[in-house]
Amino acid sequence: MSRDDGRANDVHRPVTIQRRFTRTAPGSVLIEMGGTRVLCTASVEQEVPAWLEGKGKGWLTAEYSMMPSSTRPRKRRDRGPKTDGRTVEIQRLIGRSLRSVVAMDQFADHTFWIDCDVLDADGGTRTASITGAYVALVDAIRESPLAGREQTILTGSVAAISVGIVGGTPVLDLDYSEDSTADVDMNLVMTGSGQFIEVQGTGEQQTFSWEQLQQLIELGRKGIASLTELQQVALSAE
Amino acid sequence: MSRDDGRANDVHRPVTIQRRFTRTAPGSVLIEMGGTRVLCTASVEQEVPAWLEGKGKGWLTAEYSMMPSSTRPRKRRDRGPKTDGRTVEIQRLIGRSLRSVVAMDQFADHTFWIDCDVLDADGGTRTASITGAYVALVDAIRESPLAGREQTILTGSVAAISVGIVGGTPVLDLDYSEDSTADVDMNLVMTGSGQFIEVQGTGEQQTFSWEQLQQLIELGRKGIASLTELQQVALSAE
Amino acid sequence: MSRDDGRANDVHRPVTIQRRFTRTAPGSVLIEMGGTRVLCTASVEQEVPAWLEGKGKGWLTAEYSMMPSSTRPRKRRDRGPKTDGRTVEIQRLIGRSLRSVVAMDQFADHTFWIDCDVLDADGGTRTASITGAYVALVDAIRESPLAGREQTILTGSVAAISVGIVGGTPVLDLDYSEDSTADVDMNLVMTGSGQFIEVQGTGEQQTFSWEQLQQLIELGRKGIASLTELQQVALSAE
Amino acid sequence: MSRDDGRANDVHRPVTIQRRFTRTAPGSVLIEMGGTRVLCTASVEQEVPAWLEGKGKGWLTAEYSMMPSSTRPRKRRDRGPKTDGRTVEIQRLIGRSLRSVVAMDQFADHTFWIDCDVLDADGGTRTASITGAYVALVDAIRESPLAGREQTILTGSVAAISVGIVGGTPVLDLDYSEDSTADVDMNLVMTGSGQFIEVQGTGEQQTFSWEQLQQLIELGRKGIASLTELQQVALSAE
Amino acid sequence: MSRDDGRANDVHRPVTIQRRFTRTAPGSVLIEMGGTRVLCTASVEQEVPAWLEGKGKGWLTAEYSMMPSSTRPRKRRDRGPKTDGRTVEIQRLIGRSLRSVVAMDQFADHTFWIDCDVLDADGGTRTASITGAYVALVDAIRESPLAGREQTILTGSVAAISVGIVGGTPVLDLDYSEDSTADVDMNLVMTGSGQFIEVQGTGEQQTFSWEQLQQLIELGRKGIASLTELQQVALSAE
Amino acid sequence: MSRDDGRANDVHRPVTIQRRFTRTAPGSVLIEMGGTRVLCTASVEQEVPAWLEGKGKGWLTAEYSMMPSSTRPRKRRDRGPKTDGRTVEIQRLIGRSLRSVVAMDQFADHTFWIDCDVLDADGGTRTASITGAYVALVDAIRESPLAGREQTILTGSVAAISVGIVGGTPVLDLDYSEDSTADVDMNLVMTGSGQFIEVQGTGEQQTFSWEQLQQLIELGRKGIASLTELQQVALSAE
Repeated sequence: MSRDDGRANDVHRPVTIQRRFTRTAPGSVLIEMGGTRVLCTASVEQEVPAWLEGKGKGWLTAEYSMMPSSTRPRKRRDRGPKTDGRTVEIQRLIGRSLRSVVAMDQFADHTFWIDCDVLDADGGTRTASITGAYVALVDAIRESPLAGREQTILTGSVAAISVGIVGGTPVLDLDYSEDSTADVDMNLVMTGSGQFIEVQGTGEQQTFSWEQLQQLIELGRKGIASLTELQQVALSAE
Repeated sequence: MSRDDGRANDVHRPVTIQRRFTRTAPGSVLIEMGGTRVLCTASVEQEVPAWLEGKGKGWLTAEYSMMPSSTRPRKRRDRGPKTDGRTVEIQRLIGRSLRSVVAMDQFADHTFWIDCDVLDADGGTRTASITGAYVALVDAIRESPLAGREQTILTGSVAAISVGIVGGTPVLDLDYSEDSTADVDMNLVMTGSGQFIEVQGTGEQQTFSWEQLQQLIELGRKGIASLTELQQVALSAE
Repeated sequence: MSRDDGRANDVHRPVTIQRRFTRTAPGSVLIEMGGTRVLCTASVEQEVPAWLEGKGKGWLTAEYSMMPSSTRPRKRRDRGPKTDGRTVEIQRLIGRSLRSVVAMDQFADHTFWIDCDVLDADGGTRTASITGAYVALVDAIRESPLAGREQTILTGSVAAISVGIVGGTPVLDLDYSEDSTADVDMNLVMTGSGQFIEVQGTGEQQTFSWEQLQQLIELGRKGIASLTELQQVALSAE
Repeated sequence: MSRDDGRANDVHRPVTIQRRFTRTAPGSVLIEMGGTRVLCTASVEQEVPAWLEGKGKGWLTAEYSMMPSSTRPRKRRDRGPKTDGRTVEIQRLIGRSLRSVVAMDQFADHTFWIDCDVLDADGGTRTASITGAYVALVDAIRESPLAGREQTILTGSVAAISVGIVGGTPVLDLDYSEDSTADVDMNLVMTGSGQFIEVQGTGEQQTFSWEQLQQLIELGRKGIASLTELQQVALSAE
Repeated sequence: MSRDDGRANDVHRPVTIQRRFTRTAPGSVLIEMGGTRVLCTASVEQEVPAWLEGKGKGWLTAEYSMMPSSTRPRKRRDRGPKTDGRTVEIQRLIGRSLRSVVAMDQFADHTFWIDCDVLDADGGTRTASITGAYVALVDAIRESPLAGREQTILTGSVAAISVGIVGGTPVLDLDYSEDSTADVDMNLVMTGSGQFIEVQGTGEQQTFSWEQLQQLIELGRKGIASLTELQQVALSAE
Repeated sequence: MSRDDGRANDVHRPVTIQRRFTRTAPGSVLIEMGGTRVLCTASVEQEVPAWLEGKGKGWLTAEYSMMPSSTRPRKRRDRGPKTDGRTVEIQRLIGRSLRSVVAMDQFADHTFWIDCDVLDADGGTRTASITGAYVALVDAIRESPLAGREQTILTGSVAAISVGIVGGTPVLDLDYSEDSTADVDMNLVMTGSGQFIEVQGTGEQQTFSWEQLQQLIELGRKGIASLTELQQVALSAE
């Protein structure tokens, strides 16, 4: 199979990670993976949800939204009484993923708010959100009253990528046109040290075998190793 | 590790599948897995969502709900403007899982409605819902104007089970007390012929290694083989 | 007039009252009246609505819902911003009826939650709910920290039944096909000692005379006497 | 028992019925019963609900609302996602009551909208709403393209009144202070010819006997006869 | 241009201001401007929004609603999850306008609630609301525990009027038929001493020049001077 | 008075207008005015609201939102049943303003969607939205099937700016710190040829005189002339 943009099956799209993209939020990252662009911001507030009060713990929560102009045709704005099911799933995934690399007892009584807003959508928006949000989270710690406690608050780094079976072939980092024809679609979330945080594979068009599942995970592991490196490079810049 | 109910780590809880449990719905199954009991019903309507009209296809959709009395303390009734995120995720999973074993072009202009209502919740309600719903779906086909087309409508069977790492040990079919202390929680949905439909593993308490992931999947495959057999036994009865 | 199921006009459908139907709720009763089946559960929580705090009183509240599969065709699930008017009326009626046989000052700072969920709907679901909920309430008292105070908490028993004028003739306990063609429809809620709690008669198809009203009430009183006896039998079993 | 305002137990409060109170609606009636004042308007539209289209029938529907300033302290405005349960019950009652005196097949494809807005609330607002709305409905017919068909559209008149047991004594037409201390509260809706449309009696504070029920109905019948006369007088004026 | 009702371009419609229109609210004014009639009520409550607690200040808030029968055809009742945009704008304007003539630190811990409900709508309902609400507010102060502090609470009076360009000509106080064909529509809110509180001019059909803007404001100032006088006359009556 | 950033009272903040900022929407403009940054996008769809179908006209509508991270502390995301009143007002203003410079009969059966999402909020977000949205609208016409009809669709250009009285002095283009202490706040929307579209002045802290109103409008006219020039420069670039 040859991919539209000529990529090899195990290569992800070009990635750029731009820190301090907006000015108000302490952490603000624009991540691009090919045609997908997501603004990931992180803020800290000195309060926790009611059920955590007085427990000596902090919290981290995430919201995800696609801007109306991020798709063609324009997508209806995410308002109204009912948040759409896909959005709910994605923001829960982002929250869980980031929570898995922070030590809640190291920032008692603080909440990190992660906001991932998709500016341009070309596949892989949820995984790009996680990869970008991690960088924004680090900046938010550095810019907040928690500055200096980065080493104890963070237990590792986190990145995510999609893999899938397209036209019978396992491929890394699907763009929108691949995603919409994929037989199997899988999202992997992993730490920088190669441990799994989340594995979500779905075969709505086709079921898949144990062997295919293993191939997909192998592809994803390589992709995440590359993204982890790009995160570290971005964060080591001034 | 010894489990509370003395089960071996690779053994699921006792399962009973009771067909024709309520009288109104064409398919109505009460599935019990240990202390968890779910009423799974299936109905057929001669209509499809607007976006499928005139396309020569059918549709299948699912709803999931926990009855207020299914937990202690009582759970707030699932009403109001905002369906809770967990509920949305689960009913989308049930829908996708069942859709993967039906041939949409074999029941043009019909919709199957799957309703999974949890009567008693003791862990594994989403996977029990899928396993029970498959049996209800078969009955609904048999009782409906589509009777006789069971072989062409269904492309296989589907069952689901949870696996997880509890106290460092991989175990099959977690009950509520195990689930609430699990380091890693995974749900597997597979066909009766051993293909994967959905793999969802989450390590919110702890991350997990590639080796652990493989062990968990192995456990789940055995469990699903056993559930598939129980489904067939139930369906072969009068 | 001869009734579809051959019943005499003053005879109610066969009733069964099955206690401990689900396992989680302290009180859980499946009541069947002919083809109608309702799961009535009762739970106790140690809290009261804000307006009762510190007043030395308890509270009792009820919710009612028809399961989607309880009707044919399937009924839309009772979700979304707006609870439907009929549901609101019915759950208010159930709450008032049960409250009329409990002494609020005998269970200060506790709330009883009554949940009535219709599994199969064949007429008379609201009255079956009340009759079943009373039995569930007794069990909830017995299973709760309030055990032993049953005599002081309860000031009597409560049961309910429908009566109506069908084809010009007053009849007891209408099934769905009778109910949908009735000229006059009335629900009676009474105590075990023959006092009235609620009388709701509606003549949307036809108005009715004072004489007919008296006949209907007479029929209902007999029906309730029979239901009261069945409640006592059920509750005296182990 | 002597009543606050010196009325005998079987006497209703002074009633005035003012037609053409506002100018825009074809029927617009201000009804006063003592301190209670309700603006009842009726409009006609040439359309019917979807389920009545092409059936050769018309429809009548009602809405009820208490203005925020109609109570002291001020009542929260009836907005937001959830119409309050009491409001839903009342507007359904008003709708059923008025529908029982119109012949739906005599105004095919038209809908009457009845709006009852309480300006001052001093007890009995729902029954005053029904009594006033009947007069507004007649005016709306007379002012609409249906003018001249009043005799065939209307099958009778309708009025309503409350009765109750206060301090052990049955009384007619309770004001707010009586209503809030009543043991038993009953609303009667009847035609001008003395037939019953709706009987709703509730004993939340106390249960009531068959004898008491008969006394209450007797009181109510007298009250409605008087209101019917006042409606006729109002309608016979220019 | 000659106006439908023969008015000169700089003359407002006949105004009547009727105090104590309903009985329950402390301030209750029916204001008529030609065919437009609005019931303006004012109530006082001893509480403030959370963000003002303990700050030694009071608050004033307003709600606006058009009764369903105030337009022909009938307007859908203002219920449901989403208050319509026009309503939100208007009630915010009424609130701001009234707040500009009260000294918040002179009625610490009290909130004035202003309710403006349109009975008949014939153009200019928002400006009539403001003019009437001022009179209701004065009465509410006089009738409340704040009586006697009218001089310190109120820093002035407020009235409002619409102006616009219709058929190329600037006119004062547009009725509905003028308003719906106006090129430019402007609302002025001013104090009794001739200071501006709010200027809102919109040219959706046509843009307007600096000269036209000056003419409109001149017309409005004259109108408001007249309304201020009518408010004073009304308030000086017993 | 000296302003925080040393600007003269009649000078607006530095403005940059960056076209083609995101890739998916046909028109996409990032406008910066000092610390305020708004992403303005414009899309075209071949459909109109139901009430315009078959009328030979097009439509233009706008939505406005502040991103949660655009303020410090973070602003709650604009979801849920109730769009906040300020948001509703602003997006109605943006829509009206843009509609005033398009000829609806020149793009029959098409709708322009304008989305203004605030990335960083430092005062003047609604006026920056209008100024930026005009540029995005032009690009959307050029990129759409309507390309080439720019001259007939657009009847002029539109820009907007805020003026106000701060510390007694009229100033142009208030930043957040000025805005939050302003006595009078006014927004002007004008065409490139100097005609008024909208004038909205509010004196919540203080009322204002006719002379002050004239001074404010004079300041605003100069500011808009400058913005109009910047729009033209941006649009004349490739």
